[in-house]
Amino acid sequence: MTQSQKTWSDRFESSLHPAIARFNASIGFDIELLPYDLTGSIAHAQMLGRTGIISAEDANRITNGLEQIRAEAERGEFTPGIDAEDVHFAVERRLTQLIGDTGKKLHTARSRNDQVGTDVRLYLRDRIHHLRDRVRDFQRALVDLAAAHVETLIPGYTHLQRAQPVSLAHHLLAYFQMAQRDWERLGEVAARTNISPLGCGALAGTTFAIDRDDTARQLGFDGIYANSLDGVSDRDFAIEFMSAASLIMMHLSRLSEEVILWSSQEFGFVTLADSCATGSSIMPQKKNPDVPELVRGKTGRVFGHLQGLLVLMKGLPLAYNKDLQEDKEALFDAVKTTDACLEAMTIMMCEGIEFRQARLDAAVTEDFSNATDVADYLAARGVPFREAYNLVGRVVRTCLAANKLLKDLTLDEWQELHPAFADDIYAAIAPQQVVAARNSAGGTGFEQVRQAILAARALLDDAASPSS
Amino acid sequence: MTQSQKTWSDRFESSLHPAIARFNASIGFDIELLPYDLTGSIAHAQMLGRTGIISAEDANRITNGLEQIRAEAERGEFTPGIDAEDVHFAVERRLTQLIGDTGKKLHTARSRNDQVGTDVRLYLRDRIHHLRDRVRDFQRALVDLAAAHVETLIPGYTHLQRAQPVSLAHHLLAYFQMAQRDWERLGEVAARTNISPLGCGALAGTTFAIDRDDTARQLGFDGIYANSLDGVSDRDFAIEFMSAASLIMMHLSRLSEEVILWSSQEFGFVTLADSCATGSSIMPQKKNPDVPELVRGKTGRVFGHLQGLLVLMKGLPLAYNKDLQEDKEALFDAVKTTDACLEAMTIMMCEGIEFRQARLDAAVTEDFSNATDVADYLAARGVPFREAYNLVGRVVRTCLAANKLLKDLTLDEWQELHPAFADDIYAAIAPQQVVAARNSAGGTGFEQVRQAILAARALLDDAASPSS
Amino acid sequence: MTQSQKTWSDRFESSLHPAIARFNASIGFDIELLPYDLTGSIAHAQMLGRTGIISAEDANRITNGLEQIRAEAERGEFTPGIDAEDVHFAVERRLTQLIGDTGKKLHTARSRNDQVGTDVRLYLRDRIHHLRDRVRDFQRALVDLAAAHVETLIPGYTHLQRAQPVSLAHHLLAYFQMAQRDWERLGEVAARTNISPLGCGALAGTTFAIDRDDTARQLGFDGIYANSLDGVSDRDFAIEFMSAASLIMMHLSRLSEEVILWSSQEFGFVTLADSCATGSSIMPQKKNPDVPELVRGKTGRVFGHLQGLLVLMKGLPLAYNKDLQEDKEALFDAVKTTDACLEAMTIMMCEGIEFRQARLDAAVTEDFSNATDVADYLAARGVPFREAYNLVGRVVRTCLAANKLLKDLTLDEWQELHPAFADDIYAAIAPQQVVAARNSAGGTGFEQVRQAILAARALLDDAASPSS
Amino acid sequence: MTQSQKTWSDRFESSLHPAIARFNASIGFDIELLPYDLTGSIAHAQMLGRTGIISAEDANRITNGLEQIRAEAERGEFTPGIDAEDVHFAVERRLTQLIGDTGKKLHTARSRNDQVGTDVRLYLRDRIHHLRDRVRDFQRALVDLAAAHVETLIPGYTHLQRAQPVSLAHHLLAYFQMAQRDWERLGEVAARTNISPLGCGALAGTTFAIDRDDTARQLGFDGIYANSLDGVSDRDFAIEFMSAASLIMMHLSRLSEEVILWSSQEFGFVTLADSCATGSSIMPQKKNPDVPELVRGKTGRVFGHLQGLLVLMKGLPLAYNKDLQEDKEALFDAVKTTDACLEAMTIMMCEGIEFRQARLDAAVTEDFSNATDVADYLAARGVPFREAYNLVGRVVRTCLAANKLLKDLTLDEWQELHPAFADDIYAAIAPQQVVAARNSAGGTGFEQVRQAILAARALLDDAASPSS
Repeated sequence: MTQSQKTWSDRFESSLHPAIARFNASIGFDIELLPYDLTGSIAHAQMLGRTGIISAEDANRITNGLEQIRAEAERGEFTPGIDAEDVHFAVERRLTQLIGDTGKKLHTARSRNDQVGTDVRLYLRDRIHHLRDRVRDFQRALVDLAAAHVETLIPGYTHLQRAQPVSLAHHLLAYFQMAQRDWERLGEVAARTNISPLGCGALAGTTFAIDRDDTARQLGFDGIYANSLDGVSDRDFAIEFMSAASLIMMHLSRLSEEVILWSSQEFGFVTLADSCATGSSIMPQKKNPDVPELVRGKTGRVFGHLQGLLVLMKGLPLAYNKDLQEDKEALFDAVKTTDACLEAMTIMMCEGIEFRQARLDAAVTEDFSNATDVADYLAARGVPFREAYNLVGRVVRTCLAANKLLKDLTLDEWQELHPAFADDIYAAIAPQQVVAARNSAGGTGFEQVRQAILAARALLDDAASPSS
Repeated sequence: MTQSQKTWSDRFESSLHPAIARFNASIGFDIELLPYDLTGSIAHAQMLGRTGIISAEDANRITNGLEQIRAEAERGEFTPGIDAEDVHFAVERRLTQLIGDTGKKLHTARSRNDQVGTDVRLYLRDRIHHLRDRVRDFQRALVDLAAAHVETLIPGYTHLQRAQPVSLAHHLLAYFQMAQRDWERLGEVAARTNISPLGCGALAGTTFAIDRDDTARQLGFDGIYANSLDGVSDRDFAIEFMSAASLIMMHLSRLSEEVILWSSQEFGFVTLADSCATGSSIMPQKKNPDVPELVRGKTGRVFGHLQGLLVLMKGLPLAYNKDLQEDKEALFDAVKTTDACLEAMTIMMCEGIEFRQARLDAAVTEDFSNATDVADYLAARGVPFREAYNLVGRVVRTCLAANKLLKDLTLDEWQELHPAFADDIYAAIAPQQVVAARNSAGGTGFEQVRQAILAARALLDDAASPSS
Repeated sequence: MTQSQKTWSDRFESSLHPAIARFNASIGFDIELLPYDLTGSIAHAQMLGRTGIISAEDANRITNGLEQIRAEAERGEFTPGIDAEDVHFAVERRLTQLIGDTGKKLHTARSRNDQVGTDVRLYLRDRIHHLRDRVRDFQRALVDLAAAHVETLIPGYTHLQRAQPVSLAHHLLAYFQMAQRDWERLGEVAARTNISPLGCGALAGTTFAIDRDDTARQLGFDGIYANSLDGVSDRDFAIEFMSAASLIMMHLSRLSEEVILWSSQEFGFVTLADSCATGSSIMPQKKNPDVPELVRGKTGRVFGHLQGLLVLMKGLPLAYNKDLQEDKEALFDAVKTTDACLEAMTIMMCEGIEFRQARLDAAVTEDFSNATDVADYLAARGVPFREAYNLVGRVVRTCLAANKLLKDLTLDEWQELHPAFADDIYAAIAPQQVVAARNSAGGTGFEQVRQAILAARALLDDAASPSS
Repeated sequence: MTQSQKTWSDRFESSLHPAIARFNASIGFDIELLPYDLTGSIAHAQMLGRTGIISAEDANRITNGLEQIRAEAERGEFTPGIDAEDVHFAVERRLTQLIGDTGKKLHTARSRNDQVGTDVRLYLRDRIHHLRDRVRDFQRALVDLAAAHVETLIPGYTHLQRAQPVSLAHHLLAYFQMAQRDWERLGEVAARTNISPLGCGALAGTTFAIDRDDTARQLGFDGIYANSLDGVSDRDFAIEFMSAASLIMMHLSRLSEEVILWSSQEFGFVTLADSCATGSSIMPQKKNPDVPELVRGKTGRVFGHLQGLLVLMKGLPLAYNKDLQEDKEALFDAVKTTDACLEAMTIMMCEGIEFRQARLDAAVTEDFSNATDVADYLAARGVPFREAYNLVGRVVRTCLAANKLLKDLTLDEWQELHPAFADDIYAAIAPQQVVAARNSAGGTGFEQVRQAILAARALLDDAASPSS
């Protein structure tokens, strides 16, 4: 590497130590930004032409050169080495090789600081749109599965203790709601990401009479950064994305935990399809829920990236600092991890999981998860709730001692406990009825659940939804 | 403590181990939720009365009892011990002492799971409104300071190297923009926080014909959770808040770092007022920037809480789990820390910091931060930017060797470097002109900065702003 | 508050803004260090006396005054307000009230920077010793429980799928080993904590001829910091402690998860004692595993503190910065949280958990967790392992289709599968034998487990163990 | 991909979904473990041969096959695709291709769970040794630089305010001490890493009469895991490493911050060599401290990995879970990042940084950082320290108002302030004397510093040091 190869080297008398050159170079990972860098540079060149800062011919020559690089890259022929330092210099250098000195005009009225900010925002905007589609696919899988299981009952848990039976559809739709918030949040992050820093220059704007609205319009940005110092040093959008991605992962980790539990021999609520499970290297009988385990494991990875980026930004003075180069690998990996996890979980929910009706039926009839209904039964007949609750607590204790369930009590026994009990107590505590009766808004009552499915489908189909 | 004191004890044969009772109890910190718990319970009781689940008289009796507890609390007379387990049981117990058995009807059609979710959301909604006001105060302090310093110049930095001089107002307004995003984000979090889980019951809804819209309306919620399992186990809003608070702290940490730098002897750009600085226990000459140091230090605290809450939620199966009790202390502390830091930084920006004009003037005239302007000068006269840039790099190197600044070069020397230079080069590189010339949108040009101040004031005054 | 009240105020012309005074003050939490501060100051005063820097009488007068403050504090009569700023100033002020101008000599040759470092190390050293005892209690509980369950079998899991049955004792002893590493790590942290910064002064040492070894010896430190700048700004020991505490919490979170699973109706492996479980406010049948849930939840809290402290230290220039004041609350809370969790889990393992033999017996006989033993059976008879493994995979698939277990196959069926099978295959796949046979070092074979219990007891009893 | 290609597929009826196969596969990154996997497998095969579990010929045939794979890998000819799932299966498959059915015997008495644990430990042990050497190189660079600057003075700071001047060597040696702790910690982590899990099997040990001590000895492990469940699920060592690496990065981030400050125009204490700095794409005069900025930025990356791994382990039931696969990429990246940062900082300290004597000299003579010495002067003459301190505070205030330094006061002025002042006050407050006088143990006095350099060199040279 000769000294003159560095774009910024004419003020420097000697060249970089090779280890330091390797240490500094970002070309190994920021090449991922290439398509966005080219698109951004074309918009910049066109604007320079339109405003007369360079001639229209120069602008077009630059544009053509950049498109040529894009074509080379698509053919796999654009592979800059680490002497290129970063994707921006790599492009400018190749451009000058292709079109000569005109290429040296591209960087007029621009800095790498606003350029890389533009690239990263264009990249992330694209990926967020893609991730929102992934979330929609995941939601669709949940609703479809829910629709098939409105009347399938499953124990509802608190503290992982059976609490009250619920419609399996209701359980699945809880995740639909979490995903709905994820989808909304991604939309808000996309909106705050879609602001153009282009034209902020190195930090202070530029002396050229550029038109920032023009480049913003060309690139589909919703607006421009109002302050150039902020424009080149803001990474809020990346952290916000990490935060939204962390919540997605957190939600997926919860569903993962449940699928892992459900597929255990003890729960036995689901069978995993062979297409979504793997075996053991030594125990031939094993069928392991690798997908949800990996998703659960990858949760920490995204949380870690969020934390890493916050640490990165802590205490940095204005404006651009080289530390910011470290935002990219974390961001790229968070995007890819979240994407892959959403895809894998969607596949699993679509085709990888089968609920075992018989096991679920057995589960909801063999315990005391209808005890609240006895208390409610009394409270509805005028017994103060806390009194009813205490009475049922004693009943449960008695039953446990006698190895009985509530449904095994005779009417005499019921009435001995409290005169308000009548023959309809048996219907009131049958699992289907227990579920059906929780028909308060948002409850697990079948009627509520059917409405929830309709509402969910409407959300998914809504042509007026923010993402469309 | 006798066994019968525990609300849930009639199913239990023996009482809690005292150390376990202490370990489980949340009353030590959830007492902070008391006013919200009372308000929520009153709304619930009124709804029970209106829907006929309990009688109107009972509803009013309960309401009066709860108001009585509020009055006791305000007089400092309501101080439940750890045998009360949590604020909810403490209130119910006291209520029953005050109004007798009717008190036992309050918990009809409700669970602590939806109750605590309601309390926390009411608490956080309040605090977010307060924090948004704090952000506004901080922004106001920044704009006021900026307005006084439009024509004060300060070196603009990248990599903490002097890059281009900027208007001090422009620098301060970068933080205004960060705070503006903070204010917006808090608004979005508030919106997602302001959804009522009340009526979700323990996890599945309730068998009583409650009216969730009624309680939501009474409590000022914008809507109700659509899924009861989600309603009792969702803590997204708390994590979103932590994330928004982390960004606030990150922004404050950056400003803190700058104030610390500025108040060092080496920078010497500001003098801290005695009212905002402290001394040393041993070095009598010291005047320390404690406020920004503490703010910078507290940044990690809030980041840690964000991480803690994400970890808490990772892999939790539906629905409510006791782990969720751990959300509160972290949330309360993040709220208080962010609040105190915003307040302290606002005071500091209002009255604690004085810029030293002479030092700033000296700083912007003694370096090469006008070098870009020379390159721009040439580029504006047709020299390709990269060529101009390289030429100026050589000029700087020459000047450094000769211990000269750019302004010290004679016109002959300039023209020897490039024939395009004319007498107007001296004006072009004078600091005031260097700043004035960066008049691109969002740049540091004085005209731009004056407009930015007007726009900032308009934002602050806007009666139609989302928070009003 | 008058100006003269601040120790450092004579260089200052006006007093602190009240909100800033509140913001800066640490007295609200560093009062926890009082006993250590007094002890440290006494050692300092005695050394000053012995070296002649102050007179022996002055040293004794100071010592007596400090002991008087200790007595006041023990009687609850020493309660400095926030005007005292911090515990160090509070003590010095009170001392001067008690003994007059001699009190003003205490701070000779010392700074708050080395003083607070001394206090925190003395505090943490004490707490680590206490926590190591807690770990030992926890280990003892595990060994005792293990000793009672050598021959109790429990399914061993990988991927939460039943893999191979194991001795319950073996399972419990896995946690013993984790705790053993915790105990060792705490010892290493204690060693690195037990170095004296006293005498490092504000940052550079002191001009007085102090004897740092004397104070170190008095205070039981193992050595002194070799570099004064490092001495006043090092917080490695606090971060190391947080890291060790995070590992303890991580281990406890794993055991917690298991106890939560085991106490679910689906697993049904344990019954929780009433003394360690709580009920529901609405579902009378519930018995919730609050202790392990809370422990699992508190894990995030300690992880968050670790992260917070790392963030705090990131990028701080030498030497002391006010940011360091923020180490204390996090450290205190991490200590208390870890302490409480260890105590609660120990109580739970001692008296809160009862294994249900019948359920465990059923669990280990009703599945394919003996499949590896069939493959091993063949491999031991010369069939290459991977071939044997594949054959058994086919057997399992056939059994699943026929709804049979391995033990249900006839000898003919076995021999049809492979001629190497003989009548001893039935013994080889009986659960007790399956466990007994894994007698490799560290394996679950009963012989191994018995030895492991002996070794564990020896470790606990070892008089030569580092903590004794 | 045909079904039969998966090692564990004979129990499975259909093959993996291609997206799930991609999602599950670790071969993309665990190929890094290849050399360790081969070494571990050879040790296992040899032990199987020695214990007679397989024949000695089989053992040697396997060993030769594995060495053949190693040779292929070194020639770049071993490049398994994702259908290989992971490095272990890839090796076993290739082995069977190379040596036929004997290859299928390699996995006798072993599981991937203990195998991968062995691989990761061997990997990390190697890397820790390498990193310890890096730390030593860094320490050497610091000592060499210190040795050249014993009498160079630099302002010592607290709160980034000049506090007391110190020897530059003393300042540099503070980092030597931090690095010394890093080196020690890495040694402790290495010790806990160097325990063999090989032979723990899937989770429960094995039915074969293996010799775990034999494999441990062959592989250079210090001991074996005492409990098989712990052995396959323990990742403490990886987290401990992350924690030690985080502390290294934290220390480097502090030094980085200082170098960034020092190389600013305002401080101007150092000049960066061209070989360690870069320029700007737009501002031709810039010379940016990229190395310390990047190091500071990468700090968050390692902190994030630590946090990610803790999150990963939180709440995992025993024993192995697929989540653990996620430990590798984080670990590899933390190793590489720490390695690269140590290397880059060492190069910078060796050849990238030049201290500017004139600027440093000016800095230590132009401020009040000798004020403590005036107070000490009085205290040494019997004035109670706090009284002396307050008096000097007033002097500083007076000087500030008169725009004077302490050295500018006349003897009359001094004596008016306090009669104890004599002519020797001028010597006492001259910077060289101020530094020289702080000759307490570990202080900045030149004599202390010279001893410290000797002690540091002795540490580095010590043939008996733990790493040798």
